[in-house]
Amino acid sequence: MKCKRCTQTAEVDLPWRHTAFCRDCWPDYFLGQIEKAAKRREMFAPGDKILVALSGGKDSLALAHALKQLGRDVSGVYVDLGIPEASAQARAKVQAFTQQFDIPLSIVDLAAEGLSIPELKAGIDRPVCSLCGRVKREAFNRAAVQGGFDVLATGHVLHDEAARLFANLLRWDDDQLARQSPSLPARPGFVKKVKPLYRLTDYETACWCFFNTIDHHQGPCPLGKGAGFSDLKSLFDSLDVAQPGRTLEFYEGFLDRGRPFFTPNTTHTESPTPCPDCGGPAFAEVCSVCRLKRCLEKVRLHGPAAKTWLKPKRSRRRS
Amino acid sequence: MKCKRCTQTAEVDLPWRHTAFCRDCWPDYFLGQIEKAAKRREMFAPGDKILVALSGGKDSLALAHALKQLGRDVSGVYVDLGIPEASAQARAKVQAFTQQFDIPLSIVDLAAEGLSIPELKAGIDRPVCSLCGRVKREAFNRAAVQGGFDVLATGHVLHDEAARLFANLLRWDDDQLARQSPSLPARPGFVKKVKPLYRLTDYETACWCFFNTIDHHQGPCPLGKGAGFSDLKSLFDSLDVAQPGRTLEFYEGFLDRGRPFFTPNTTHTESPTPCPDCGGPAFAEVCSVCRLKRCLEKVRLHGPAAKTWLKPKRSRRRS
Repeated sequence: MKCKRCTQTAEVDLPWRHTAFCRDCWPDYFLGQIEKAAKRREMFAPGDKILVALSGGKDSLALAHALKQLGRDVSGVYVDLGIPEASAQARAKVQAFTQQFDIPLSIVDLAAEGLSIPELKAGIDRPVCSLCGRVKREAFNRAAVQGGFDVLATGHVLHDEAARLFANLLRWDDDQLARQSPSLPARPGFVKKVKPLYRLTDYETACWCFFNTIDHHQGPCPLGKGAGFSDLKSLFDSLDVAQPGRTLEFYEGFLDRGRPFFTPNTTHTESPTPCPDCGGPAFAEVCSVCRLKRCLEKVRLHGPAAKTWLKPKRSRRRS
Repeated sequence: MKCKRCTQTAEVDLPWRHTAFCRDCWPDYFLGQIEKAAKRREMFAPGDKILVALSGGKDSLALAHALKQLGRDVSGVYVDLGIPEASAQARAKVQAFTQQFDIPLSIVDLAAEGLSIPELKAGIDRPVCSLCGRVKREAFNRAAVQGGFDVLATGHVLHDEAARLFANLLRWDDDQLARQSPSLPARPGFVKKVKPLYRLTDYETACWCFFNTIDHHQGPCPLGKGAGFSDLKSLFDSLDVAQPGRTLEFYEGFLDRGRPFFTPNTTHTESPTPCPDCGGPAFAEVCSVCRLKRCLEKVRLHGPAAKTWLKPKRSRRRS
């Protein structure tokens, strides 16, 4: 197969884009997609201080590396989830990566804050992926706000975003649909959040890591096995095999034409108050993470009987 | 496995519904789903004269048979598409079925009207499935209006409807999303149209045909091979294996909560004028089927060069 730009032998085949690239032309394409995403969705201003959320996986490391190659002011933050073995392994990969590519790194240690994911899983009767997402989002935002960063960038790729969109459509969740975006502006208490890889797939970030000898953490989360979200992601893999390019059309079409159909509920336009426990932004008596901390505290005091303190999952609609 | 109602040995296993039925309890379930659909979406009034569009396949024959078992006033119409071998085979199945179950049948012969699908495919530069759909819809509606029927019922099952919905979402087609429904009210020139099988799958209609010894036409359309719509249907098969029941939730959720987000364009609220060629409802100079007839006439007069007379397919949006 020939490179579609220079006719050298191609090394990256992208059938879902009807294209292929040699090793020399490939970086132009990959970085070009990030720049296109950033420009189209107004992600960065000149000189922005960017904090990249680094999990240790290929997507987030490729993102930090690519943004640095594009001349951006990039730092990284790693949130140690306190998962035995996996968290230490991922942390080591992140530390090695940031040293190799001279990227400043800060670390948030959830176990030291009494909020490790295994503790949350054991103490609170909610899906672990939902709890983990909540504490990670808070930790990333806190690191960005306290570090004086302009933007927090995460390594979500196209099929993450399409699967999230489809999950929101499966529930017809008006509020989530109205707010889903690869570029969420800053608001009181919250830094701007962007997803510059939303036009790229995880096959492409894997290629980026391979060609740039980026050693990343591998393997699924040991706590989130069988998560429904993976099923939805694989649906879009199948769709792109059957109808190349449909996933990107679907997601870009949503951003351009679909999202305006939906309206967010008013909670998200209200200003937060300072959380009395941590000082972070709160939309209730305490912020959502300090609420988890208080739940865990009750479990520690009263035992497993206190595990059901949180309100149950929203029941499924009739069908 | 036991029947979930009476604990006899189950013969129909429906893992996507978390249920299973023996041969005796199964009809209650199948007919109950049709009645639930009909009631929830206001499909029938007492005494309605129902015309069922019969293709010869399992879905439409199961529908006509089930509606008759429910005591409805059912007739059938078969539209002969003029496809060599397949149309004659399907026609024979429909004729045998309607004789077996004493259902009045009318037949529309497209070849006799100069509109057979092979002729359309050869003469008009549009996807054949789109042309076929257009002439079939017109033929079904004409048969229903001229026959004095109250409702036209088609055998679309859940995964047809979910795939159609997903196709509309992939394009974010506001107008189609606003109008997609298993129960479209009558409007000037058009009979009411309903899809009473929208809560059932084609596995279930196949079971219905099997237990009721309904001999149906099998095999895919010889002209529509590789149609993209099948890819989308199979996505929902995969989804229901991974997450049983999600497809029905998605579609019912759309009807209850999703559809109101979208607005139809005004063309569909305008009243049609009589087509000067056929007298049927037209929204342009002639109705859309007589437009095809005129195209074919040009091809017959001027040869294949006239094949591109119809406007090209809408171009894909940017991505």
